[in-house]
Amino acid sequence: MSSQRRRSRSSTAEAEGSRSHYDSDVIPTPALVVEKADLDHNIATIGITLPGAKLRPHVKAFKSTALAHRLAAAGHRTFTCATVREVEGMASAGLGEDLLLANEVLDRDQLRRLAAVDAQVTLAIDSSEGIVRAAAAGIRNLVIDVDVGLPRCGCNPDDAGRLADQGRAAGMNVRGVMGYEGHLMMVLDRAERISKVEHSMSKLLVAAAAVGGELVSGGGTGTYDTNTWTNEIQAGTFLLGDTQYASLDLPFRQAVRLECSILSLNPKGWAVANAGLKALGMDHGDPSWANGEVLYCSDEHTTLVAAEGVSLALDQRIRLDPAHLDPTVARHEEMWLVDGDEVLERLPIDLRHW
Amino acid sequence: MSSQRRRSRSSTAEAEGSRSHYDSDVIPTPALVVEKADLDHNIATIGITLPGAKLRPHVKAFKSTALAHRLAAAGHRTFTCATVREVEGMASAGLGEDLLLANEVLDRDQLRRLAAVDAQVTLAIDSSEGIVRAAAAGIRNLVIDVDVGLPRCGCNPDDAGRLADQGRAAGMNVRGVMGYEGHLMMVLDRAERISKVEHSMSKLLVAAAAVGGELVSGGGTGTYDTNTWTNEIQAGTFLLGDTQYASLDLPFRQAVRLECSILSLNPKGWAVANAGLKALGMDHGDPSWANGEVLYCSDEHTTLVAAEGVSLALDQRIRLDPAHLDPTVARHEEMWLVDGDEVLERLPIDLRHW
Repeated sequence: MSSQRRRSRSSTAEAEGSRSHYDSDVIPTPALVVEKADLDHNIATIGITLPGAKLRPHVKAFKSTALAHRLAAAGHRTFTCATVREVEGMASAGLGEDLLLANEVLDRDQLRRLAAVDAQVTLAIDSSEGIVRAAAAGIRNLVIDVDVGLPRCGCNPDDAGRLADQGRAAGMNVRGVMGYEGHLMMVLDRAERISKVEHSMSKLLVAAAAVGGELVSGGGTGTYDTNTWTNEIQAGTFLLGDTQYASLDLPFRQAVRLECSILSLNPKGWAVANAGLKALGMDHGDPSWANGEVLYCSDEHTTLVAAEGVSLALDQRIRLDPAHLDPTVARHEEMWLVDGDEVLERLPIDLRHW
Repeated sequence: MSSQRRRSRSSTAEAEGSRSHYDSDVIPTPALVVEKADLDHNIATIGITLPGAKLRPHVKAFKSTALAHRLAAAGHRTFTCATVREVEGMASAGLGEDLLLANEVLDRDQLRRLAAVDAQVTLAIDSSEGIVRAAAAGIRNLVIDVDVGLPRCGCNPDDAGRLADQGRAAGMNVRGVMGYEGHLMMVLDRAERISKVEHSMSKLLVAAAAVGGELVSGGGTGTYDTNTWTNEIQAGTFLLGDTQYASLDLPFRQAVRLECSILSLNPKGWAVANAGLKALGMDHGDPSWANGEVLYCSDEHTTLVAAEGVSLALDQRIRLDPAHLDPTVARHEEMWLVDGDEVLERLPIDLRHW
């Protein structure tokens, strides 16, 4: 499917510009469309601040080994995963050099699956029970997951040394610590963000001193350049973007959009596109549309009002910017890499589910 | 996978009761679990008010032909679909006696797929262009989709007769009208709901008089017994339920829940379950938990605080009630039909995507 050339078509009469008019036999709607220039920009940009292993890209944001291969080609060969399925898929794709499952796993069957993966896998642990079960399943590498202020997984920083000792006593290699300051990703003011990240990471550094090992892992797209306290950053959203991260002062571009088609034009002034809640992650609210207002989304539809001067036609293609990338991508079977009018590659979203 | 008997296990010491403790080798978490008694109750209950073809179940809510077969066995053999994929899947499952695609289709490839389905398919139309394209693709049966007050698809009621004439002139069978009063599903006061539904349906009846044909189709779970103006109701959520519909005065039970496992217990008082935004539709907000409070959901986690007196253990199973059924179901590959501790059947969610 690579380098599939579309039929040429004039689109000057249409409101969305030439990039949004793919024939349905090439890309049926609704579909996630990734502009290659924006993707390349994002990879190049993050590599300036975080070259090589300073970035441990988080695959949960894009769930596609095809995109992970592009990051590996840019020198980022260590990866972060959120699910056992992601670890298995990355290993199968030949990307198992150093996979951090930055999440707790207690289920014995999932631990057995994890231990059976042909890759170097490191598991996050925040409890004694977790260590006992991981050891029993044959997991060899751990990091101690530390509570740095986000109400989610992670042990008390003062407990990290004890867990590390327990892990080593059980014969496991304790590679260090991780702590995700997710509650600070959306601090809009940069100076405030820097200050709060420093405070949060001071907890991680306390734990790191007690634990030892080479890894001090944390961070995300929102703090990729302000979290200077870790030695690797677990960012993922930078790659494709969403409207929430676009509100920050970051140098990344919106690279993925939801392409859909106009199904209905109501004389009262609204239009209806053929994609809705089942094609979007909605926890951060409605998607955005560059050429007008999104009134609301329902299961299979988005109701829109075009801006003044924008005219829409039935079956016209438009593109919506998702509000939250990760749960949007997880709703789709594939993305399409495009270069303007040219469709370059189908990107299977092969790391979905559990 | 039917009648797969689990190992017996005492669960009296655990907070969620015996029904929530399936071994992971039978049902790995996160997973959608459907209680058979509640499912049967919902099917029996709606059949009292809407026997046989008075109910045209909307498969978009549950997206599983296994569940559609149960409705057909209860006498409901006509179905509503929202996507071409749903029509194709229902036909393949032998449930194509009378399928209404209650949505506009303008894309020529999708119309060709629809015309090729081996089933009786009726398509909703709200524009002249829609009729021209449907006729060209070989679609034989139409209903005129009418705007009854929800800002979405549907023509002006005064325009319905003209579209019907156009359809018949193009050689198509115009079976009647449909209009979905989706904006009235959540009117909490019953008397107000009845009055508003009557006003909304008066628009549909104007169109029906102009269009002719046998179908006057509309309604949903929220108005299944107050919309007495149509001759069939397109309800779907009644089958499995969600917390939004549970706020109404309806006799249906919550039949599906998201089963997940506790990954982390923080000494500050919260617990973390292994399912989040990627396992839930979030447009109606967080899921609910019978034994405590949901603090928030993130991609792979839900952070909870147990109610006083409820104790949780690591790896314990709990169940969350989804806030919006349709986009929750669409995130999963399967549901599990259970009867208490017994797993009866895997229900593939085979009608997903487009």
